[in-house]
Amino acid sequence: MTNLAQLSPNDVAAVNQQLQAQYDAFTARGLKLDLTRGKPSPAQLDLSNGLLSLPGADDYVAEGAVDCRNYGGLQGLVEARRLFSTMMGAPPDQVVASNNSSLALMHDTIVYALLKGTCDGVTPWSQQGEISFLCPVPGYDRHFKICEDYGIRMIPVALREDGPDMDQVERLVAQDASIKGIWCIPKYSNPTGTVYSDAVADRLAAMKTAAPDFRLYWDNAYAVHHLTDERIKIANILELCARQGNPNRAFVFASTSKITLPGAGLALFAGSKDNVKWLLARLVPRTIGPDKLNQLRHVRFLKDDAAILLLMDRHKAVIAPKFQKVLDIFAEKLEQVPDVSWTRPKGGYFISLEVGKGCAKRVVALAKEAGVVLTPAGATHPYGNDPEDRTIRIAPTFPQLSEVALAAEGVALCVLLAAAEKALRT
Amino acid sequence: MTNLAQLSPNDVAAVNQQLQAQYDAFTARGLKLDLTRGKPSPAQLDLSNGLLSLPGADDYVAEGAVDCRNYGGLQGLVEARRLFSTMMGAPPDQVVASNNSSLALMHDTIVYALLKGTCDGVTPWSQQGEISFLCPVPGYDRHFKICEDYGIRMIPVALREDGPDMDQVERLVAQDASIKGIWCIPKYSNPTGTVYSDAVADRLAAMKTAAPDFRLYWDNAYAVHHLTDERIKIANILELCARQGNPNRAFVFASTSKITLPGAGLALFAGSKDNVKWLLARLVPRTIGPDKLNQLRHVRFLKDDAAILLLMDRHKAVIAPKFQKVLDIFAEKLEQVPDVSWTRPKGGYFISLEVGKGCAKRVVALAKEAGVVLTPAGATHPYGNDPEDRTIRIAPTFPQLSEVALAAEGVALCVLLAAAEKALRT
Repeated sequence: MTNLAQLSPNDVAAVNQQLQAQYDAFTARGLKLDLTRGKPSPAQLDLSNGLLSLPGADDYVAEGAVDCRNYGGLQGLVEARRLFSTMMGAPPDQVVASNNSSLALMHDTIVYALLKGTCDGVTPWSQQGEISFLCPVPGYDRHFKICEDYGIRMIPVALREDGPDMDQVERLVAQDASIKGIWCIPKYSNPTGTVYSDAVADRLAAMKTAAPDFRLYWDNAYAVHHLTDERIKIANILELCARQGNPNRAFVFASTSKITLPGAGLALFAGSKDNVKWLLARLVPRTIGPDKLNQLRHVRFLKDDAAILLLMDRHKAVIAPKFQKVLDIFAEKLEQVPDVSWTRPKGGYFISLEVGKGCAKRVVALAKEAGVVLTPAGATHPYGNDPEDRTIRIAPTFPQLSEVALAAEGVALCVLLAAAEKALRT
Repeated sequence: MTNLAQLSPNDVAAVNQQLQAQYDAFTARGLKLDLTRGKPSPAQLDLSNGLLSLPGADDYVAEGAVDCRNYGGLQGLVEARRLFSTMMGAPPDQVVASNNSSLALMHDTIVYALLKGTCDGVTPWSQQGEISFLCPVPGYDRHFKICEDYGIRMIPVALREDGPDMDQVERLVAQDASIKGIWCIPKYSNPTGTVYSDAVADRLAAMKTAAPDFRLYWDNAYAVHHLTDERIKIANILELCARQGNPNRAFVFASTSKITLPGAGLALFAGSKDNVKWLLARLVPRTIGPDKLNQLRHVRFLKDDAAILLLMDRHKAVIAPKFQKVLDIFAEKLEQVPDVSWTRPKGGYFISLEVGKGCAKRVVALAKEAGVVLTPAGATHPYGNDPEDRTIRIAPTFPQLSEVALAAEGVALCVLLAAAEKALRT
């Protein structure tokens, strides 16, 4: 598209009219497409159908003669904790295997801290006045929802190419003791695909924090969710924190939701010995133990690290073409459109699309009218407030490839139309 | 046994010596028996082995074309909510089906009330000064643990043959606005087997409470867990509360933990429409939905009310003889021992044994030395404090029948010895 700023008002009006006609034609097709949530597609779920009849009628005894059918086993099966030890970057005794989902684990650790404090400070957070979290933006709306729900003030910090803006982060946490945590998705971040550099991870581990019980909420949701052959590795945050003298700083979370079946996955926690001890003590009043049969089912199905990587390769084969399709269409339609850019993730579930200032809401509204549902503009920011109204999260995994293509074309058209409308107004 | 109070000191010493010899002989057998927790036995778990290969490779689509493998479905599968509608005494839209366990649901509803208030009062309980719960005693240690953990003051009230002492309850809740709830196990109560009468249920539903958001924590854990052919029915507390103008008073809980498999069961909540709406809103920040595959698995396996009752008959066939064995041995050894009595439950998982004042701890200690592990004395009371030191909870379901018999004989012997020791001291 030509640079609208260089056109005469009449020419802008002509472009706008042309785009409006294309948009009307697209809308007239009556499509119903959904790019909202990071859901695996049925073809991905099929890869784990083996779970549906596991563990099998005679298979319920786990290591240590544990009858998985009965009560008990607060920390989860040892073979499940061993299976995910590599992914979590911690020995099995520093891993807790739990019911679905990691979101629930993150929620619960915040609730426990609010009501009971952490292992580094027994005064409940809810009795310490205002509590704040740093929120790299754009980020994950469900992280922000937990904070919003419990009245935890969210402070946005910029997410750069290698992770959060560490100058900003270090300055804030050093001076403000109300800041108790930071949300981190260190690999293939939602929605940008950002991978935290080792240097950023090390600064997060080392930085001086005014709060003695500051926590990295290290949501390693996409630990093995590669979209290329590169299989990017990130730093082991637990080791870095220990080395930097802040052993209890990191809470590491992951789950099998996007490895096996989101509706029936395992959640995983890893932390220092003191954090694990703290979490287990906090779990005692709540539960006698997790669903050990589902853990056994996963152990039988996933087997080992190599088998997990193989399964993830099969996921990649299903979804990488969908990401490529979106990127191709954006390149074709949106390349060199001023103020429009997007990420090219090497893993994870999302593409982040940046449109012209003040245009994201309009794009989402136009797309909706045209039958393409997108995540609400603003969802990538605390309180749903994207101050520049620029960021749109694209989730291409769930629809079929042909639908993803259609949806991406629709989105591109809406981006162009919104830009033309804006040019017309100014 | 003769009434020790009527014997001469020498005769008491002789009896004591005789019992001590019997006890030493019992101890010398080096037994390892466990009557601590209400766990189903392996033979009971075997009844649900059908679950281990369900739902099966091609069965994952639930009503409304719900793919149980994927995210979503906060309230649980409609067929699961319908299946347990009778048991919960509520229509499916007023039931929430959740992951294991009901303990977690009870814990979470208290946590939510502490941090966010209820649908009848948005001020968080944690910001209202002291909060209290009424605790009918003897009761369930895990209920009390939740209160203790979150600093909720526990006020013991007497549990009578037909439920809590309602005169006491009504007086307390009318005058003390800090009292936000009462723990109720209305059918086959843990540990006494008490069944709440309709009159008690109605008074609980009708009573005036100083707290506007007072809640009955109605833990119907043993709804279908009969030990006789009687299949006792209790009042529908939700209907009573609605009729008495307190529609939001009751939180009803149950689970399949002791119907199918404790390690891999479903938890269930039922309440008024407003309470269900409140709970679902509280769940939003925590989870995208429960494990729907486990719900589908249970729907396929349990089928309907009639099939559930049939399965519970098979449980009864396994455990009723164990209860009978304990009762027979107690009758043989302890009948007419002064101050010693026990319950004869018609359902549930426990027998409550009352021994002489100040003797419960000693009995438990003696039993432990003799190789019979019992729930710690005092566990049936708030703060682990049984002021008269009289109540011992007997859990006969897990060990094999022969072991239950041995254990009951050991316990009876310890009761007699503790009584003789006491008589010797006085």
